[in-house]
Amino acid sequence: MAQKAIRLVPLGGLGEVGKNMLSVEYGENILIIDTGIMFPENDMLGIDYIIPDFDYLLDKKDLVRGIVVTHGHEDHTGAISHVLEEIQAPIYATALTCGLLEVKLNRRGMRDKADLHVIQAGDSVQLGPFGIEFFHVCHSIPDAVGLGITTPAGLIVHSGDFKFDHSPVDGWPTDFAKLAELGGRGVLALLSDSTNALEKGWTPSETVVDGALDEVFRDAKGRILIGSFASLISRMAQVANAAANHGRVMAFVGTSMIENAKMARKLGYLDIPDKLIVPLDKALEMKPSKVVLMCTGTQGEPSSILGRLSKGVNRQFNIEPGDTVVLSSHPIPGNEETVHRTINGLFQRGAQVIYDEIAPVHVSGHASAEEIKLLIKLVQPEYVIPIHGELRHLKRHADLAREVGIPEDHIAVVENGTVIELRKGKLEIGERIPGGYVFVDGSMVGDIGPKVLRERESLARDGFVAIHIHRQAKSGKLRGDPQIISRGFVFTPDAQDLFARAGQRIREVLSANQDNELEARVEKDLRKFFYTETRRRPMVFVFITDNS
Amino acid sequence: MAQKAIRLVPLGGLGEVGKNMLSVEYGENILIIDTGIMFPENDMLGIDYIIPDFDYLLDKKDLVRGIVVTHGHEDHTGAISHVLEEIQAPIYATALTCGLLEVKLNRRGMRDKADLHVIQAGDSVQLGPFGIEFFHVCHSIPDAVGLGITTPAGLIVHSGDFKFDHSPVDGWPTDFAKLAELGGRGVLALLSDSTNALEKGWTPSETVVDGALDEVFRDAKGRILIGSFASLISRMAQVANAAANHGRVMAFVGTSMIENAKMARKLGYLDIPDKLIVPLDKALEMKPSKVVLMCTGTQGEPSSILGRLSKGVNRQFNIEPGDTVVLSSHPIPGNEETVHRTINGLFQRGAQVIYDEIAPVHVSGHASAEEIKLLIKLVQPEYVIPIHGELRHLKRHADLAREVGIPEDHIAVVENGTVIELRKGKLEIGERIPGGYVFVDGSMVGDIGPKVLRERESLARDGFVAIHIHRQAKSGKLRGDPQIISRGFVFTPDAQDLFARAGQRIREVLSANQDNELEARVEKDLRKFFYTETRRRPMVFVFITDNS
Repeated sequence: MAQKAIRLVPLGGLGEVGKNMLSVEYGENILIIDTGIMFPENDMLGIDYIIPDFDYLLDKKDLVRGIVVTHGHEDHTGAISHVLEEIQAPIYATALTCGLLEVKLNRRGMRDKADLHVIQAGDSVQLGPFGIEFFHVCHSIPDAVGLGITTPAGLIVHSGDFKFDHSPVDGWPTDFAKLAELGGRGVLALLSDSTNALEKGWTPSETVVDGALDEVFRDAKGRILIGSFASLISRMAQVANAAANHGRVMAFVGTSMIENAKMARKLGYLDIPDKLIVPLDKALEMKPSKVVLMCTGTQGEPSSILGRLSKGVNRQFNIEPGDTVVLSSHPIPGNEETVHRTINGLFQRGAQVIYDEIAPVHVSGHASAEEIKLLIKLVQPEYVIPIHGELRHLKRHADLAREVGIPEDHIAVVENGTVIELRKGKLEIGERIPGGYVFVDGSMVGDIGPKVLRERESLARDGFVAIHIHRQAKSGKLRGDPQIISRGFVFTPDAQDLFARAGQRIREVLSANQDNELEARVEKDLRKFFYTETRRRPMVFVFITDNS
Repeated sequence: MAQKAIRLVPLGGLGEVGKNMLSVEYGENILIIDTGIMFPENDMLGIDYIIPDFDYLLDKKDLVRGIVVTHGHEDHTGAISHVLEEIQAPIYATALTCGLLEVKLNRRGMRDKADLHVIQAGDSVQLGPFGIEFFHVCHSIPDAVGLGITTPAGLIVHSGDFKFDHSPVDGWPTDFAKLAELGGRGVLALLSDSTNALEKGWTPSETVVDGALDEVFRDAKGRILIGSFASLISRMAQVANAAANHGRVMAFVGTSMIENAKMARKLGYLDIPDKLIVPLDKALEMKPSKVVLMCTGTQGEPSSILGRLSKGVNRQFNIEPGDTVVLSSHPIPGNEETVHRTINGLFQRGAQVIYDEIAPVHVSGHASAEEIKLLIKLVQPEYVIPIHGELRHLKRHADLAREVGIPEDHIAVVENGTVIELRKGKLEIGERIPGGYVFVDGSMVGDIGPKVLRERESLARDGFVAIHIHRQAKSGKLRGDPQIISRGFVFTPDAQDLFARAGQRIREVLSANQDNELEARVEKDLRKFFYTETRRRPMVFVFITDNS
């Protein structure tokens, strides 16, 4: 790495650029920002989650001066244990973020491996050549921070996930003053959140949700169930307020909801009087009009509370006519179908369902177009580098930057793996480092690639047929009928005739051929046979045993 | 069926109620409205499409007096050949709709089986006790109709898919006068489109697209590619206009786009001068600034033109920097992910991409909340029966009906398969007839059910392992190593050691056991083995051959 240059390397396949892991490099020093996971798309069959590809860092391990985590969401924290298995470096994050990292590390028995340093907004930390100043930003989880990073080559500002909210629930707005102060110093490059670049105007304040909740609580005659993200602590506070104002008590339902509420209260991020909270079993015995249940499952996850309730398979309780269910959330892209199915299922079971298409029961945690422009004007950077979004979001962010006067050639839209170099105050887009997605499936990391996914796709589409043929070696006669097993191909009880004819076909092929590629030959023939019969293309496998 | 009652039976599983097929019954007479398909959801693995379950009609075949098709979209026409295979009855539809039905029937070699009657808006047809009056409605395909159905038990109005557009491209607005006239006669029940019930206000007119297209054509320096539905004839006309105004010629790309344009021009629904249209190969030789290509693939279908272009695998031509691609469409629910991936891919290849989140290059063909209310006020029905939508849309439609004064007990929100009876001017919700989705996969209809889908789901998640073991009967000794085949489970080149240990495991199990359920025993043991090793649950199948 040449001196006097800052290298920025967003890691991790296509998808949300730089969101999950960013490598900031100066000379022989590396700073890692965030260690998050990506969620598999619908066609990444069987994949649990995706981690950034940081192979590129493995021969530079010793240069890593530290890891900074901007906030506690999975897509910024989820890969921490995978990273720590390879790279030992001190971790810096706010108290809540550290708390959530600890939960993760404990699950993997790696807590002792981690050198966690709790910082708070306003603190500064020097890591090698990187002078890091943490400033508060509003987001859909408390205690989120952005970063000012002073390097010998210039000042970099990193927004983290942010929005400008003048009336956040915790009363702690994004630090305008700090942003302006950084701007005054002269900022070389701004890396900023593009998630909502396609949203016009200004993201509504968290407090608009209060009004919508108040209306729900006023109208609801029976039980109220609120679905929300377990990390959205401020929403818990809002529901608690509404409950207090309308004479209801609240119960937390679902492990992550209960754990997070407990931790947030312990760390002082959630101020709910004890008398307002009851355990679920107690709540279920009370008058429906006196309780509100705070549940997980806003994305329709089958194993979540709302997911199970919508199918009528929840253990402790079920939806009853008269229930009001509020989805205080928005579908994560790709989840629309399951979320809608959950809503339909809840309606079907007699609940009144209120969701963000009907009432403002949720607001986004990300800055919209006007906020993105405001950040640029506050920070007044030489260069704008859109991060946190798909290519279409970054492109939109670039449009916005142009609208506020950033010259085309001072805006860098890159994909993950592309190196950005800032040298002598000039930005150059460098080479593309090899790497992409790393799939985690079960206990194995990175073994699943395009080949296995294609196999799963094919199996998902048409299933397979496995056949065992037992022959008398000398005569070549079959001993008994071929054994045929199939899954995912046809409804076997109805397919007896099809398989009988397949068996007949096999006998013909065998009697007509005598070579040592018989298995391949039979497979090829049967593939054709099954396709002509069904217009489906199951995988076909044949075992032939010859008796000596 | 009791006399003096009208029975309404929306057919076809859960999902969009009554959209695809509706049975209207009076005495010994049945009228079928629409014969459409549903599109499989992301977790209906390998399913091509879904047809309504009309088993219920099979013992009443002879009572069917006719089939009315309201417009030419797949979700109203796609199942026609399946229906005609069971039910012979005359079909009534407008010229364009008949044209599209013919294309479908020809593909299946069933044209001669179909008794097609071309009607036009304003016509009346008497089918048994059903006096059907066809009236024009605006929708995203020309020549769509709604229905006034006079029966001895009362007048039913069916909206079809509709919107109120005061300035449609073809200059033919929805027939307000007819709706008001029907309302004046006294309408017993209104069945109305709920697709956009969640959209506030009024769906913009098709003509707003003109302005957006004009801007695109003004700014674009290079080629323009427009992605649209092949059935959206009016959009072709709008693009043709823009092309003429800006000195470009247009080429149609993609079979369905070419076929539909040809037919629409032949039948007089599309008026484009010959000199404005060039074949694709000619267009590709012209100056980029002189051409516009009208392509299929707005839903990111991998085999469509835009789908292939976004991956750089299109045959005749590819995206070039300087191209402007317009997605003149909106993602069908469930397709968001693939559509967004297509947009990202097009950006990646250097195109400027414009889609409905950025500019009004598309408007919906369905009525929004205010239009739905207006229809109710025009028709002034005794009863409102929301159709065409998921449960959440129907529920919203019911809210709107209440807002305009329809009493709660005069609104019937039901799911497919639920019988609605109108007897002596009173509405009763009757029994639920058995039935659900009928999946079409390859050449087979209805054989795939929950069992096979679960198998495909499991194979998609963790794949399978098939093992053949060859033993010496007397000694029970293995002859050679077990043959192990796996797909979709692990990356086999890396899994040699895993399978070697599996083989070892097999030997142990075999030597420890002597019974005639050995195969099941080995399968069970290996399932456990593979799960502990990988935390994945592949299907496991074992064949054992014993030499006599």
